[in-house]
Amino acid sequence: MIDPLDDAALDRVFRTARTYNGYTDEPVTEAELRQIYDLMKWGPTSANQSPLRIVWCTSDEAKQKLAAACSAQNAPKVLKAPVTAILGMDMEFYEKLPRLFPHADARAWFVGNDGLIKESAFRNSTLQGAYLIIAARLLGLDTGAMSGFDAAKVDESFFAGTTVKTNFIATLGHGDPASIFDRLPRLDFEEATSVA
Amino acid sequence: MIDPLDDAALDRVFRTARTYNGYTDEPVTEAELRQIYDLMKWGPTSANQSPLRIVWCTSDEAKQKLAAACSAQNAPKVLKAPVTAILGMDMEFYEKLPRLFPHADARAWFVGNDGLIKESAFRNSTLQGAYLIIAARLLGLDTGAMSGFDAAKVDESFFAGTTVKTNFIATLGHGDPASIFDRLPRLDFEEATSVA
Repeated sequence: MIDPLDDAALDRVFRTARTYNGYTDEPVTEAELRQIYDLMKWGPTSANQSPLRIVWCTSDEAKQKLAAACSAQNAPKVLKAPVTAILGMDMEFYEKLPRLFPHADARAWFVGNDGLIKESAFRNSTLQGAYLIIAARLLGLDTGAMSGFDAAKVDESFFAGTTVKTNFIATLGHGDPASIFDRLPRLDFEEATSVA
Repeated sequence: MIDPLDDAALDRVFRTARTYNGYTDEPVTEAELRQIYDLMKWGPTSANQSPLRIVWCTSDEAKQKLAAACSAQNAPKVLKAPVTAILGMDMEFYEKLPRLFPHADARAWFVGNDGLIKESAFRNSTLQGAYLIIAARLLGLDTGAMSGFDAAKVDESFFAGTTVKTNFIATLGHGDPASIFDRLPRLDFEEATSVA
């Protein structure tokens, strides 16, 4: 027997939630960004790796710098959105594991193992990116995740001299219903899954 | 101004939710797996790629086959959990884009571009894996995601002759509070993020 949350919650998180291309003029405050982070941070990552590093682009200067690295289709979305989050991954996330996962020498699993580092940083920062989308929705905000940009250019503009690499970006705000199209279809249960 | 869902929802999805190492004897029905899928499928992926393919291991035979490919620490979790989901990614996801993303020739963006295919399949199937975790929680179920297994062996056992590769796995059930430890710390807002 399961005990689902009510329809309002299921609708807001998944069933009626949409990816927005544009937002109303209502701002997103730093207090709200903190609320998003204080929810999403609890989402699980492998061995609590928590590799995600976020730059919240809120100033015109940051938005212009980011838009300059985006595809022609995505640049105007970044310029107009109240906030765009750059979702980066710290390729030296394992240096924090003695604190984040103290009951084993988890740092030693990664040092010198480039393949495992890359795969782990990518998978776990992506999970955390999904948690950001969900946390925003739980709070009543909307998002527009995008991967159409020049990652090397974003790295250079925002993460030069650090161990962080860009994974994807997501606009944030109060979604403008006029900015979206009809919902696209999804694969059905039988097509995407099987019971073994 | 934001309008957050109530504390019960925020708690269940993030604040008090935990990753479980063990579950009660209560089964997870196929109807419940369908409910999970019918929520998670709405989560956004780039150009609606929807690359995730799931095998729900519910039979003893499937659990044993999967456990044989898991680390010594994870094998007993798989054997005892009511269900373990294998989260795979279809490396030919783009063949479905004419239906899933009909307003552009999105298939052409990928055909022959192995780097983009791999990155897109990995990122977007991982997002969908996070949506599975969240959907289960919304419905009142618990999960235990794991990456400690031999992916080549899981591919061979479950995806031989297909274009699907394993990304990660997740147990599902009604979490047993005795199976978890104290919660691990998270990075704070200033450490993991910056406002630009």
